[in-house]
Amino acid sequence: MVKARKYVVKKYFEGVPKKSDFDIVEYELPPLKDGEILLKTEWVSVDPYLRSYNRKMPVPYDQFSYQVGIVEESKHPTYPVGTRVVTHNGWCDYSVVDVAKITAYTADSDSLEVLYKLPELKGLSPSLGIGAAGMPGIAAYYGFLEICQPKAGETVVVTGAAGAVGSVVGQIAKIKGCKVIGFAGSDDKVKWVEEELGFDKAFNYKTVDVQSVLKNAAPKGVDCYFDTVGGEISSLIITQMNKFGRVSVCGYISAYNEDHKKTPTAPILQPSILFKELKIEGFIVTRWASRWQGAIAQLITWINHGQLKPKEHVTVGFDRLYDAFVGMMAGENKGKAVVKI
Amino acid sequence: MVKARKYVVKKYFEGVPKKSDFDIVEYELPPLKDGEILLKTEWVSVDPYLRSYNRKMPVPYDQFSYQVGIVEESKHPTYPVGTRVVTHNGWCDYSVVDVAKITAYTADSDSLEVLYKLPELKGLSPSLGIGAAGMPGIAAYYGFLEICQPKAGETVVVTGAAGAVGSVVGQIAKIKGCKVIGFAGSDDKVKWVEEELGFDKAFNYKTVDVQSVLKNAAPKGVDCYFDTVGGEISSLIITQMNKFGRVSVCGYISAYNEDHKKTPTAPILQPSILFKELKIEGFIVTRWASRWQGAIAQLITWINHGQLKPKEHVTVGFDRLYDAFVGMMAGENKGKAVVKI
Repeated sequence: MVKARKYVVKKYFEGVPKKSDFDIVEYELPPLKDGEILLKTEWVSVDPYLRSYNRKMPVPYDQFSYQVGIVEESKHPTYPVGTRVVTHNGWCDYSVVDVAKITAYTADSDSLEVLYKLPELKGLSPSLGIGAAGMPGIAAYYGFLEICQPKAGETVVVTGAAGAVGSVVGQIAKIKGCKVIGFAGSDDKVKWVEEELGFDKAFNYKTVDVQSVLKNAAPKGVDCYFDTVGGEISSLIITQMNKFGRVSVCGYISAYNEDHKKTPTAPILQPSILFKELKIEGFIVTRWASRWQGAIAQLITWINHGQLKPKEHVTVGFDRLYDAFVGMMAGENKGKAVVKI
Repeated sequence: MVKARKYVVKKYFEGVPKKSDFDIVEYELPPLKDGEILLKTEWVSVDPYLRSYNRKMPVPYDQFSYQVGIVEESKHPTYPVGTRVVTHNGWCDYSVVDVAKITAYTADSDSLEVLYKLPELKGLSPSLGIGAAGMPGIAAYYGFLEICQPKAGETVVVTGAAGAVGSVVGQIAKIKGCKVIGFAGSDDKVKWVEEELGFDKAFNYKTVDVQSVLKNAAPKGVDCYFDTVGGEISSLIITQMNKFGRVSVCGYISAYNEDHKKTPTAPILQPSILFKELKIEGFIVTRWASRWQGAIAQLITWINHGQLKPKEHVTVGFDRLYDAFVGMMAGENKGKAVVKI
């Protein structure tokens, strides 16, 4: 028998999630049945959607998230002991997967369940499987390329520029020959995305006048906007878009900790949408479930060629998952926030 | 020599346009040159975009708008005397057109200039050339069909449902087998779009709770939203959209008379855009300039077959153009507001 631990969300979050909203539950995993595998968790992802999906789940629920695990015991031939896999098994240290059940998952489904072997990373950390070569990287890849359809020479704006997704979007935009302007939440992040990631320009949105700095940095206007924050700053950026500009909505973290009963307000988008004939589209990365492996392969190639820098912000310890999550939501991370179990 | 009159906007509008913002100028038209035609205006269109484009023009400017005119004198073989044409010559009683200059207009241009022969209307009023079989009809046709891509059985919401464009959109949606719910600004309009135009349901947005009536009328959610008003009501409607819903932004009349320096605020759209993976796109009808005639032909066919009812709200007299415009902006019209000169 294997003793396992998991985080259970027992209360809906109000504002910033509290430690007391979670229980850590210890329990015994049942013996494996045919077709099942036992996973030992190695890396757990903390992402903004853990906050925004909170009210979509009936409490209590096991805290979901992507994770990298290693097969410790196997009753399924495809996944022998020692295989590393990516799942959506969440904040736990051990878990059992019924392979057939999870692979019944389809692209049509709203389910976030997933199971695939960690791709060959050629010496890179397996944690990339939940970072730049995993869900956040895929969100950046398809969310930007499919929805924004960027062309070389165009000007791209990214909010959450130092985050797990935004930092990859900006680098992909550079690879595609675009001019990239980022907004992030500290001077340190601004320096990092400019100096390390090669953004053409970045700004600390907390200390600048967004409209005037953007006007200077993008004198020819903005063609593509990758939006991870929503709200007022997005309204301001969208007023500076060019005719037939494209906006990809990946998140709206500015409002995730707001009162869920009251949607925040911001300047309306319709004037810009109309006169600039903009296209604004939101996405959830599972819509491309059947094409994830193609994005992963390209992302790994870029990382291996040094064109994409997959910075991580690592917290160590199962007991520190909560801290890592709240820290990420407060913007403490540069790049992908992951927890080593 | 022909004596002509035209309305000149001499001051930018503040709030509701004032009569004193206009001058009526009398002047002599010069003799026709080769390649020119002299038009006597028969019908003038008043539309919301006359208000929203106000600050985009340098004052003073001649008040633009679509109009139907008849050729009174011609030095161009394609347009003999007696030909009826549609132009964007605005609020005037006579005008001269340099044919080659106007037809140099292309779809790429932001110019609204246009010149084409009024299509054969089979006994219908020539005024339809600036209504259901003209720009507003074309905006309804392409703006709805191309951007919303409606499928039979889907639920469509239209704001400004009794307006020149919205009233046509709702009827096209019915032709396409959709369920149609309209919002309009008076009980009388609601009754009209339900009883005469065949909308499945309509509401007076001024007297109902938009969210609760929509929840009842569209229990399976909204697939397509044709937005002519923007602002708060649009935010409310968009929260009730289904996965992969489509929004076509045709206007935002709720804010046209607001202080131009201060964009109004409304509940942010990003939560719905993200979780429902919505696509929101704005359009200006000139993007389909090369395809206008196709839409016009279809609209005329529908009108002739009784599938599309092209109601008009007619004001008579050159001197009443201002009243017709301000009345239309205040919502006095059912269907297309036109002025007979």
